[in-house]
Amino acid sequence: MDGLVVVLVRTRNPLNIGAAARAMSNFGAQSLRLVTPYAVAFREARSAVGAEALLKNAEEYKTVAEAVADCALVVGTTAVRNRVLQHPLRRLDEDTRESVQRQLQSGRVAILFGSEKIGLTNADFSHCHWLLNIPTREEHISMNLGQAVAVCLYELAKVNSSCETTRDSPVPATAGEIEQISEVLLEALHASGYVKPGNDVVAEKKVRRLMLRLNLQAMDAKVFLGMVRQMVWKLRQ
Amino acid sequence: MDGLVVVLVRTRNPLNIGAAARAMSNFGAQSLRLVTPYAVAFREARSAVGAEALLKNAEEYKTVAEAVADCALVVGTTAVRNRVLQHPLRRLDEDTRESVQRQLQSGRVAILFGSEKIGLTNADFSHCHWLLNIPTREEHISMNLGQAVAVCLYELAKVNSSCETTRDSPVPATAGEIEQISEVLLEALHASGYVKPGNDVVAEKKVRRLMLRLNLQAMDAKVFLGMVRQMVWKLRQ
Repeated sequence: MDGLVVVLVRTRNPLNIGAAARAMSNFGAQSLRLVTPYAVAFREARSAVGAEALLKNAEEYKTVAEAVADCALVVGTTAVRNRVLQHPLRRLDEDTRESVQRQLQSGRVAILFGSEKIGLTNADFSHCHWLLNIPTREEHISMNLGQAVAVCLYELAKVNSSCETTRDSPVPATAGEIEQISEVLLEALHASGYVKPGNDVVAEKKVRRLMLRLNLQAMDAKVFLGMVRQMVWKLRQ
Repeated sequence: MDGLVVVLVRTRNPLNIGAAARAMSNFGAQSLRLVTPYAVAFREARSAVGAEALLKNAEEYKTVAEAVADCALVVGTTAVRNRVLQHPLRRLDEDTRESVQRQLQSGRVAILFGSEKIGLTNADFSHCHWLLNIPTREEHISMNLGQAVAVCLYELAKVNSSCETTRDSPVPATAGEIEQISEVLLEALHASGYVKPGNDVVAEKKVRRLMLRLNLQAMDAKVFLGMVRQMVWKLRQ
């Protein structure tokens, strides 16, 4: 994510600049650029938890053109609305992530975010290779700026599933361990009067099926067996 | 996403409650629940752009147990840190999305978010089936609350590329039903001497975690409750 550049265009709210910086730091983007931010907003955006250095190194530009000059790919974000777009529009997903990550192997990629009120203008779009849309509910397409930055960076920073290592999954109990529990549980059910004499065969099958449905882990099977054994011991007294 | 419930636990900042509501509205989650929020935070959280109705319908609860009682799957979010976790930990990605979406076909799913300062506690975790982590840079794992909610909902609301219809899957037990079994089982463990006096708090959490790991179906939950009740009755004699 070193080559990913976040460009905030005409941001008004200092909280949003701080929030963008924090999300960048969370997901490993380092380079923040601001195009004509309101002076006050920029000055007051100093409280991004854990992202102070990133914010301090943010660069100011007068125009979008200058802000993206060294980037090999420029992507503008948009909620679309009723605008007629003259650019290819792509949805944030696995495919766009792959496009961006491929490009990042050879050069910088800029992601542009517009102002809180009106987003990016057509003039801003004209600097973009393509446009990116976060899929939302149609009835409420307008996202908070800090949240939009976080969602984009989360998706773009994802490690491709092909090179993932799976987490160490819990060890399931063996059939033998489950059978052991079933037997002791059956004893407890007899001792407590839950299973009536003569009903043994049906009860045995029912209990075993129930235990098998439980997805017991090996560790839990031991605990469970201990619990039921203690009950049997007490019930027998 | 109708069955997805966002539960904010001890949130302090009204801006974060508003931001969570806005992200929910963007991605189609409707049900917001607050567990003992700071009164001021809740009162002042009234300015979520486009999500005013959702915020107005938010419900307040005194405990996590009550807030998730009607949910079939309870997921706690965590940045992990150095904590030793006693729950399965899963990363936000395609796989966790599929798990949640599958569960949403038959019941409600609660996603818990902790306070800005300390997140969720171990007591909160004990109500969860598993924990969810947003993959971030290791050097900066702490996310802004509103941004974390947005990222989770963005991922969970995604339309699956392989839109599979699952066969009639069994109805899972609700958190309320599992809580009921945990309570009766705890009684049995006390009565049988498995739990020593003074060990109640630890035992309670252990039992609840164990029960949640079992993936109990609604039908099995009833049978199980009947079994343990009978044992308690006998043990008390």
